[in-house]
Formats: sequence, C-alpha cells, structure tokens
Amino acid sequence: MFSGTNLPRVGSYNFNVVLSAIQASDGTSRVEIAKQTGLTAQTVSVIVRRLIEQGIVQESGYLPSAGGKPRTTLRINPTAAYAVGIHFDPIAVSIVVADMMGQQLARWREDISPGLEPETLIAQAAQVARHLLTDLGIPDERVLGVGAACPGPIDQSQGLIISPPRRDRWTEVPIKRLLKENIGFDVIIDNDANAAAIGERWSGHGRTVADFAFLYLGTGIGGAMFLSNHIYRGVSLNAGEFGHIVVEPNGTPCYCGNRGCLEAMCSPAAIVRDVVTELGLGRASSMTALYEKDPGAVKLDVICLAAVEHDPLARRVIDRVAEYIADSAVVIANALDVELLVIGGKGVEHVAEIYRDKVTEFLESRPLARKTHTMRVAISDMGNEGVALGAAALVLHANYAPNTADLVAFE
Amino acid sequence: MFSGTNLPRVGSYNFNVVLSAIQASDGTSRVEIAKQTGLTAQTVSVIVRRLIEQGIVQESGYLPSAGGKPRTTLRINPTAAYAVGIHFDPIAVSIVVADMMGQQLARWREDISPGLEPETLIAQAAQVARHLLTDLGIPDERVLGVGAACPGPIDQSQGLIISPPRRDRWTEVPIKRLLKENIGFDVIIDNDANAAAIGERWSGHGRTVADFAFLYLGTGIGGAMFLSNHIYRGVSLNAGEFGHIVVEPNGTPCYCGNRGCLEAMCSPAAIVRDVVTELGLGRASSMTALYEKDPGAVKLDVICLAAVEHDPLARRVIDRVAEYIADSAVVIANALDVELLVIGGKGVEHVAEIYRDKVTEFLESRPLARKTHTMRVAISDMGNEGVALGAAALVLHANYAPNTADLVAFE
Repeated sequence: MFSGTNLPRVGSYNFNVVLSAIQASDGTSRVEIAKQTGLTAQTVSVIVRRLIEQGIVQESGYLPSAGGKPRTTLRINPTAAYAVGIHFDPIAVSIVVADMMGQQLARWREDISPGLEPETLIAQAAQVARHLLTDLGIPDERVLGVGAACPGPIDQSQGLIISPPRRDRWTEVPIKRLLKENIGFDVIIDNDANAAAIGERWSGHGRTVADFAFLYLGTGIGGAMFLSNHIYRGVSLNAGEFGHIVVEPNGTPCYCGNRGCLEAMCSPAAIVRDVVTELGLGRASSMTALYEKDPGAVKLDVICLAAVEHDPLARRVIDRVAEYIADSAVVIANALDVELLVIGGKGVEHVAEIYRDKVTEFLESRPLARKTHTMRVAISDMGNEGVALGAAALVLHANYAPNTADLVAFE
Repeated sequence: MFSGTNLPRVGSYNFNVVLSAIQASDGTSRVEIAKQTGLTAQTVSVIVRRLIEQGIVQESGYLPSAGGKPRTTLRINPTAAYAVGIHFDPIAVSIVVADMMGQQLARWREDISPGLEPETLIAQAAQVARHLLTDLGIPDERVLGVGAACPGPIDQSQGLIISPPRRDRWTEVPIKRLLKENIGFDVIIDNDANAAAIGERWSGHGRTVADFAFLYLGTGIGGAMFLSNHIYRGVSLNAGEFGHIVVEPNGTPCYCGNRGCLEAMCSPAAIVRDVVTELGLGRASSMTALYEKDPGAVKLDVICLAAVEHDPLARRVIDRVAEYIADSAVVIANALDVELLVIGGKGVEHVAEIYRDKVTEFLESRPLARKTHTMRVAISDMGNEGVALGAAALVLHANYAPNTADLVAFE
C-alpha cells in the first residue's frame, strides 16, 4: 500500500532535483533551475550553495541574459566523484572507471576462460578495478562505489545472480558480497539491460526523456524501461524481458520454454547458426572461403560486416533480424507508449543503420496510436562498453537521481 | 525533467494516503494505519479527525487488540460521496451511479441506434444520469462528478475522442465539454480499459496490488496497467494497447495496419466470423439449426454458451482464442513483470474459466522469470457494467487516490 512522507525526505528529494537539473543541462543557471523545477528561487539558492560547498557543482562564467544581471553558469564538477562499472557478460568481463558526468576515463576487457570459478573471476575483476583507479590517481574517498551488471534474473536485495541462462556455475553466486569483500567499496548490482538503460539516462539518449524503453542486443536480448522518470523493474525485478516477445510462433524453441522468441531468432548464436546452415547448403556468399577453411570463424562480427557490404546471404539474414526487432518495437510501442526506444549492446555494431531504418519504418506504419504519437528510435552511442558504463552510472544514479519513491519509502 | 516539492503538497498527499489505507481495508485502526504508512501516530490522528469531520470516515465498533486499550474501527462512509460512470461503447451506452466505496447503486444500459448523432446521445445520457440520481435521492452537493469512458485513442487534456476505430462520426467529439454542459457536474474522461482498471483498483482485484495489468475484452481488445501504485498511461495516453500484440504474424489483417493482432483474431467480430465461416462449410455443431434459420443470430453469447456446453466447433474456436489470449499474457508478464493480470469486459462472459485456465497454464510454463515469480490471473467480478463502474471510480480515484506525481507537479 501507500506510504506517507515527511519534511526531511522532501529536503533530500529537492536537493537531488536541483543536482539533476544541473547534470542534465550543458550549463544552466539558478533562475533556469527554478523555472524548470517549480522550486522557489530561495530554495534553489540554498541547495546550489550546498552543492558548491560539497564540490559537486562549480560556477563557470556567465550565461547570456535578456537584460538584468548576468546569470552565473552552473555545471557539475566531473571530478567530484567517480564510479567503477563492471559488466559480467557470459563470455567476457568489462571494467570501466567513469567520472561524475558518466564519462569513461579508463577501460579494460577480457574474455572469460571456460571453467573459471566465479569467486576467482570476481577477485580478479576487483584487482583490475583497483589498478585502474590507482593508474588514474583517484583517491578512495572520491569513489562513490562499484556497479556490477550481470545477465538476469538477479536478486537485487540479496545481491545474488539467479540461474542465469547458459551459465550453470553462476547460479546463486552472492556477487554483491564477494565483490564488496574484494574491493572494499559499496556495490550495487543490476541486470545488464537495466544498467545500460541507466547509462543512457545518465549521459546518453535518455538524459532528458521521462519515458523511454531500452532494447539490449547482447549475448542474450533483454530490455529495460524508464517510466515517469524512474526505472521500472517489476515486482520480481524482471520487467523488460523484450527478448522473449514471440516474433515467430512456430519458430526456434527458446530456453525459456516458449518458441520463436526474439532472442531465439536474433541472438548472436541464432544469427551465426542461420548463416552457417545456409553456408553448409552452399548458398552464394563472400563468406564461403572463410567457412570452408574454418566454420567456427563465421562469427557475428564477420556476418554483420558482410551484410553491410551487400553479401546477399548475410544481408538476407540481417534483414530478417531487423524485421523481427522492428516487430518487437511495435509491441513495445503498443504496450508502453514511451517517447523513445534506444537500441544498444554489441549486437548493433556495423548494422545499426539497418536496424534503425527498419524499426523506424515499422513504428511509422504499425502501432495503433501512431497518428497521435510516433515512438522515436535511437542507437546507443555507448559502444561496446555500454553496459559497463551503465554499471558505473548505476552508482551515480542511486546516489543522485531524484526518486519520488524515496519521498514515500519507510526508513 | 523533475519538479521539486513543498510542504502543502506533502500534507494533501498524506491526507490521501490515510484515506486510501482506510478505503482499501475492511475496517482498520489508527495504529494499523500508522504501521502501514510509516506516518507518525500524531499525523494519522490529525488526518483521521479531519476525515471524520468531513463525513468521509466513520468510527464503528472496536477491533480486537492484543492487550492495551481497544482500537476504534475506521471505515469509509459509503454515502459520503457519489459518482456517475458512463461507458460509451461503440454499440451501447451504460450508466451507473456508485457510492464512495465504488459499489453500484443503479444502472441503465441501452443499445445505440445506428446514425444517432454524438451530441444527441450525450444529451440523452446526461438526462438518464440525472434521473438515476433523482430516483436515488442523491443531492447534487454529494455528487463528486461524472466519469466517461470511451474507446481510445482519446485526448484527455482536451477531452476529445480521437478517431475511434470503427466509429467515424465520433472523431474529435468534445465529449468532456458536451457532457459537462448537459449535466452540470465536473467530467473526467478516459479510455475504456483505463476506466475498468481503475475500477478494479478502487473496489476489485487490484485493491491492494501495487503492480497489475488489465486486459479488456470488449467490442475491441485493450488494456491498462497500474505500476508502483499508479496508473501508467504513456506519453500520448495510449499505453496498454495489448489488443495489438501480434499473436499470428500471418493472421487476419487488423485495422491498425498490422496482421494477426490479438484483437484481429479474438474480438467478438472475429470469433463470430470464424464460427460462421465454419458453419457455412457444414461443420458439425449444435448451432447449425440456428445458423440455417438466421446466420445473424450466431452471436458471441450463443457461441460462448455453446463452447461451455461442449459444442465441438464453438469449443475449438474458443480454445484457440484462449491460447491467443494466453500468448499475450506471456508477453505482458515478460515485459511488465506485474503481480497480477485481471481479465475483464463482456468478452469473458460464460468462458471466464476456459480463459483463466489457459492463461494460468501458459504463465506457469512460459515467461522467462516464472521460477522467480509467477504472475497471477483473475477474472473481473465487475460483470457487464465493469467499464461504467470503472468510469465512476475514475472520479473517486482522481479525488482521493494518493499520487506521488501530485507531490512534484507544478501548480
């Protein structure tokens, strides 16, 4: 049921409202913030003074003003705080250090050797993160914490990974506790898609968009959503599993138990499988020589590059994938009616334009309410480290984003 | 972007938090409310006193208490306020009067004669509503307002119906203004599925559920969702169009521009079409005699009754509909991860059990996170007047439900 609220909560909520207005702007003023937030000029002034005292915000130059006195420009001090982001993907680990604005300062990525114990991997990751911080000369007291992103489902409250698809030895790993023990900073965990969406929110396409969905094309396919300015995680923290929208009722069986899910038809493994099958049948392709030398060399990267270079086989497969993705985007538009769909993850490399064009075409011609409102599409600019950067943003977001739920949560 | 908040807003939010705790209970106490809401005993006492003074809450008897002094039971005074609900369906108009608890006190329903002008229909509906209120002896000052539910898309801020499917003369009808002019009370409009969901929230299955989805099987198929205790309408007020989840990619073309949408496959018109086609082919059925006498008499009602009575043809068609509905429920579970799916609308009459069983079966075996959390299913108890009752609840909900957005909205 509903919870009540009280004055101290209002104070800390408004503090984050002002911080967030500055963070989302490219330089703003006290007057502008008051206008945007509905807070009084006095409240804004008091909060800005505290933000400056704490070193989070700095004054830099003046904004043009229509008459009256010039307005001091307020910006986030990017060096005010740092966060570490770690992406535990089924096949690789990526680690980044980001500043307060969510910008990447250092990165590291390595494939996971098969058979490595989760405990060992987590200890190694903690060590690498420590090295990156030392190399950058960032003192511990400036590190807000560590964000870890893993494939879902996870148990966020207990900090566990629960039965991740295709990775048996990671079942019920207490990742939050292990990471904290090894690295010494506070740890927040979330699933990969939520982390990437929070990254988009903090410093990407979702920065000023109250309602957007995120479609994550990684080793698996997942998703996330910001609704009314808040990430919506669902009652068991598993909302946004857009990879399990059925796009072909009689299609490939999916490990989830259904058939023809977007993930079963369009994951990297599915794309490679379809292409290799067709190469085996002797279909014409620029990849034939490579395939005959080593079928295992026909990887997603190779296929996506071939598709862009008009290889007929690769292009046919990628075009079909684009249609399935676009079908799913239409379901998302009809169900959620959000402003924007951001598509990200390593799966968009090389073929971003093909996907974006097909999704745009479908969104303009199929959702029920398209005459009232057309959902926009954007491809994430975060590149391969999108989830790791998002994991760092998890920490920044948890500390600084205004959350109306905090207004009404029990202590 | 985010808006700030202030003290008066906190006061009125907490007032509604306490009211809502009493409304959702079957009798509660000040101590219980403080425990549930996190508000101090003193804040609760002050608010309860105001609620009693305003006649909204009444004290009645005592709750059992484990030692200490007995706790006075608090209940909503059902006669404190009334609301009128009007459902403008494409083929009929339903009008109800409900009390503060959302209970139906009077109802009226009539088919719409083809060719009737919207202005005339709205004037007639206003007259009927006035009569119902007079018959019940409800004075004007106790009427909180009128809720009107119409097929979407609608423009809620302007009070317009926008290009409703299959009803050309209702395009851009200023229903809010016309209704207010004719009836003299404040008017709130919303789409049929949102209204029905708000009815479930006020006095049905959603009463104490923070996150639930509603699937509306009416003349068309729509949906709605409560997320984190708030109805989520989407950026253009068109969220929850679950009727346009594609369940058969090569299926019947839908008026929305897509193919094989749930609505195209499972609306009453689609069910009747499928059954009549099969009867025309001479398939064995208990409906054959009726069909040969008058094909137009094979209506949804007849088919659903026949399905329950094991007519093979009717049962085959209804079983397929149940599977398509269950497929859509799986998409909803994967995308939204809500606690509960409520299915309502006149389309569930007679066949509620068939639909519920199939949906339950699919939800237990297909969504990705089913091992972590299984979405429950319930069939609305609101019957045929669910949307009209929901339209009345729109008014109660708008006046009395706590809304964290009100904490942070501009004046």
